Amino acid sequence: MTQEKIWTAALIVIGDEILSGRTQDKNIAQIASWLNVQGIRLAEVRVVADDMALIAEAVNILRARNDYLFTTGGIGPTHDDITVDAVAAALGVEVVIHPTARAILEKYYETRGGLNEGRLRMARVPQGAELIENRMSGAPGIRIENMFLMAGVPHITAGMLDALTGTLEGGAPLLSVTLGAWAPESEIAGVLRDAEKAHESCVIGSYPFFRNGTVGANFVVRSTEPHDLETCRVALKAGLEAAGYEVTDGGI
Amino acid sequence: MTQEKIWTAALIVIGDEILSGRTQDKNIAQIASWLNVQGIRLAEVRVVADDMALIAEAVNILRARNDYLFTTGGIGPTHDDITVDAVAAALGVEVVIHPTARAILEKYYETRGGLNEGRLRMARVPQGAELIENRMSGAPGIRIENMFLMAGVPHITAGMLDALTGTLEGGAPLLSVTLGAWAPESEIAGVLRDAEKAHESCVIGSYPFFRNGTVGANFVVRSTEPHDLETCRVALKAGLEAAGYEVTDGGI
Repeated sequence: MTQEKIWTAALIVIGDEILSGRTQDKNIAQIASWLNVQGIRLAEVRVVADDMALIAEAVNILRARNDYLFTTGGIGPTHDDITVDAVAAALGVEVVIHPTARAILEKYYETRGGLNEGRLRMARVPQGAELIENRMSGAPGIRIENMFLMAGVPHITAGMLDALTGTLEGGAPLLSVTLGAWAPESEIAGVLRDAEKAHESCVIGSYPFFRNGTVGANFVVRSTEPHDLETCRVALKAGLEAAGYEVTDGGI
Repeated sequence: MTQEKIWTAALIVIGDEILSGRTQDKNIAQIASWLNVQGIRLAEVRVVADDMALIAEAVNILRARNDYLFTTGGIGPTHDDITVDAVAAALGVEVVIHPTARAILEKYYETRGGLNEGRLRMARVPQGAELIENRMSGAPGIRIENMFLMAGVPHITAGMLDALTGTLEGGAPLLSVTLGAWAPESEIAGVLRDAEKAHESCVIGSYPFFRNGTVGANFVVRSTEPHDLETCRVALKAGLEAAGYEVTDGGI
């Protein structure tokens, strides 16, 4: 039996607006879900301030220990958009104007007041970079080595992810199946642990909730092995029923 | 003129459910906003998997370079709740049952089926820890050295933060004021940069949006100095108006 390679990615969320609490991040969940479909596991996320040294530090650590590194934020037209500079510094390369990016922006802003200094910033890339298509708002994302520099605004990020779909090498997609029960998590911790231990390729997550005055939980079994997933699901369901709980397939 | 100390905190969000994309994190924004009111700046966030070594690594780095370290998640009753073990390992101390936590849980579960092995896990703390009151669901949070181990479920986290309000030493609260304009961010990048440069204690964040077919942005000026905040606000407003945009106080 061969051990399949597990493909991993890290994400750096760049921006004072997340750390100040002003903006609720939506890109972590969006990128995590997208990566699952590509057969890549999101292994770690860091949220860092708009600070060259901190971004460069995170870039160099995370790109070395993962197959891919994504960043969101900091590639817009304003003075606090420094992701390109930080990544170039981390790689030890120059920042250059990408001619295709410049042409895209010239065309996009032709009917929107023309290119100015701020807008031209969005054509800047670390030397050697390729572009990621932005179907929403002109300014492209940036691909260099194993890194993908994406917009911070979630619907623009979504468009860039869409453009990348199917282009990254990944492993078997992570499959999941959900069971739900009106059980206090603390009553059935042993059942979960036993089911997980008996199925090595599976992990079981437990997600408690409190609704209409009653506690319950959904249990998500994850595996890249369809057969293991199914036997683990059956064992978990049997365990929960043996503990006296009715089980809802697909979750509550 | 003396330079005031800037108090900082880091946050570790622990949990495969965030990295899998299943759950959208709400604690980053919640804790960031709460910290602002305490006069403490959220400096960095990491989201890490339910993995002892990865949690311990992040704990040791972040607690050393910040005044405070918060964690959310992984203090529940199930087998994948390993935050206490990871923090104890990072500190090089034993995991012990905290007698007060045990008493709290015994009382809480008296009418809910009694204490069992899973529930008793929630009385485990790194040796030397104090408890953080949980007004929502029994199991307390944990305070040890400069660390605060909190629940992952956002409304329980909120209750624990409430119990901590006013108990942490912090600096001057970060003040903010918002201006909005139906301006493309890329048209007024220079105005923002100039206003920020002219007011050293201020940072200006720019938050573009797209509504009803038109682009606009809110501009948030932040400072711990009320006077600087006001002069920066006035300068920014004047700059935006000079560029031909109507400015909405308080944001759009």
